[in-house]
Amino acid sequence: MMRIPENRVHQVLTTVLTDRGFAPGRARTSARLFTEANRDGVFSHGLDRFERYLGGIASGLMDPAAEPSRSWGGGALERWDGHRGPGNLNARAAMGRAIELAGNYGMGGVALANTNHWMRAGSYGWQAVEAGCIGICWTNTMPNLPPWGADRPLVGNNPLVFAVPRESGAAVLDMAVSQFSYGALDRYARDGRPLPVPGGYDAEGELSTDARAILESGRPLPAGFWKGSGLSILLDLTAALLSGGRATCDIEADPDRETGISQVFLAFAPPEHPGLADRVLGILEENGVRYPGRRTLEHRAESAEKGIAVDEDVWNRITALL
Amino acid sequence: MMRIPENRVHQVLTTVLTDRGFAPGRARTSARLFTEANRDGVFSHGLDRFERYLGGIASGLMDPAAEPSRSWGGGALERWDGHRGPGNLNARAAMGRAIELAGNYGMGGVALANTNHWMRAGSYGWQAVEAGCIGICWTNTMPNLPPWGADRPLVGNNPLVFAVPRESGAAVLDMAVSQFSYGALDRYARDGRPLPVPGGYDAEGELSTDARAILESGRPLPAGFWKGSGLSILLDLTAALLSGGRATCDIEADPDRETGISQVFLAFAPPEHPGLADRVLGILEENGVRYPGRRTLEHRAESAEKGIAVDEDVWNRITALL
Repeated sequence: MMRIPENRVHQVLTTVLTDRGFAPGRARTSARLFTEANRDGVFSHGLDRFERYLGGIASGLMDPAAEPSRSWGGGALERWDGHRGPGNLNARAAMGRAIELAGNYGMGGVALANTNHWMRAGSYGWQAVEAGCIGICWTNTMPNLPPWGADRPLVGNNPLVFAVPRESGAAVLDMAVSQFSYGALDRYARDGRPLPVPGGYDAEGELSTDARAILESGRPLPAGFWKGSGLSILLDLTAALLSGGRATCDIEADPDRETGISQVFLAFAPPEHPGLADRVLGILEENGVRYPGRRTLEHRAESAEKGIAVDEDVWNRITALL
Repeated sequence: MMRIPENRVHQVLTTVLTDRGFAPGRARTSARLFTEANRDGVFSHGLDRFERYLGGIASGLMDPAAEPSRSWGGGALERWDGHRGPGNLNARAAMGRAIELAGNYGMGGVALANTNHWMRAGSYGWQAVEAGCIGICWTNTMPNLPPWGADRPLVGNNPLVFAVPRESGAAVLDMAVSQFSYGALDRYARDGRPLPVPGGYDAEGELSTDARAILESGRPLPAGFWKGSGLSILLDLTAALLSGGRATCDIEADPDRETGISQVFLAFAPPEHPGLADRVLGILEENGVRYPGRRTLEHRAESAEKGIAVDEDVWNRITALL
């Protein structure tokens, strides 16, 4: 990892995106989302993924000029069509609209069909809390996870986000329903380290802590076995039913062809409950429990001091695009 | 287990509740919720729990005459105060109101403070789908689960429900965020069977499939280790912040004193997406995957044919109350 000033990262990404057909403001917003992912320590869904994002433009999967449009409005709940535009910009627009609706109705929901991978899930949780709202959002994905009772990937790992504001920061849960992400499995396999708990099955169908064996069998585990499996099914169904869009079984099971996915964004603006979140999280911290989002704030502080951490190879490839 | 006609079960429970201060209509509704839990195979949160429910009246924990009232309305989102009335009646009223709001606004939310244990979580998911809505609800609980990184119960197992209607039935996920419920651990311990996957820690702090050892250590596992733990924290925070009510850390950690809990009920009424749910669930079934709610329908069919299954000891104790 090397450290680069935040402005420089943002500027380079903005330039690359502008060159590839993004309008200037949209290039800046997308570049900011990528930069913030690395700033917050979420490298796998930050710059590490930038080249694949560009690949989606080259392959025609993603239209950099497409903007989402409302296809149905029911008051507090709306359906939007993402027109296969950039997934991160579509998601940011959808959560922004949900926050607006929450201002009008106490809560707001936007269900987004026909969009692309939103990159870092937590971005839209942080977006909600920065607007003073509670945010909940989830997405379906291509089939990439065998459900409980099957040995083939029939469901998605369908990331789910819960975010609450607090006086001093936020708590933001950003979790896929698989026990380990593919990014995490890759890291353990590369380092030759065993997983801390079983993460899937080996070729013999035995539970395993060997990341390499799990990647080879293609059978990672749902978090909580039948529980993550059931949650995956319902996150997919609700995303598709609410948005009028596609379910996991309709999405091509190839990371370079995954498109037309469905997402849900909820924002809530209840009256305040002063001090509650700080108190609850304070008790957990006193007992040595790291709450979701805690590590993000540490990464953010370190990045503010030292610059944004970026994988050197990734950075060299991105700057070569200038 | 014995089998008893549904009408008879409902009548007995109604009479017992009426004798203990429930208005006739409320006694019938509460009795129906208990009866339906057994009808659907959820014995642990049906008649098995009826005596503890009555105990809450005797101990003053629960006021059978208390009805929930709205404390704040923001349009599609409302706060209600449960006034420590019967948890199942409060929850049913709250989901009913969320469904009404969904009719007006496309989606509706009711956050309920100051209530009691809602008994079977899935009841309110089925209530939403019977009204043609997608339903999502969750509750906090007393501290009964050590979060990841701690060996004491600092968080709740906070059941979460996702329910979607379909042409032929529904899919209803009803899950606590612990890997196994205490009811399930009790059954495995009684039968002397090992758990199918690790369910907690033994006295030496090792992961174990021995239900008895886990019950003795008081350290069941969150589903998905850190994932269920993080989800528990956010379900608790959102329930308390949305309702203005209490968080898990404020709730007495004694099953016979647990009260003043917080819950969230969301209902969604989007335009239809015909055939989607049947198709998604059909593909899973063709591949041997049981979707959440599938078993419920089997229990329901068997109960319609043979009567309601009730534990004989439980039934004898309940009828002795007449």
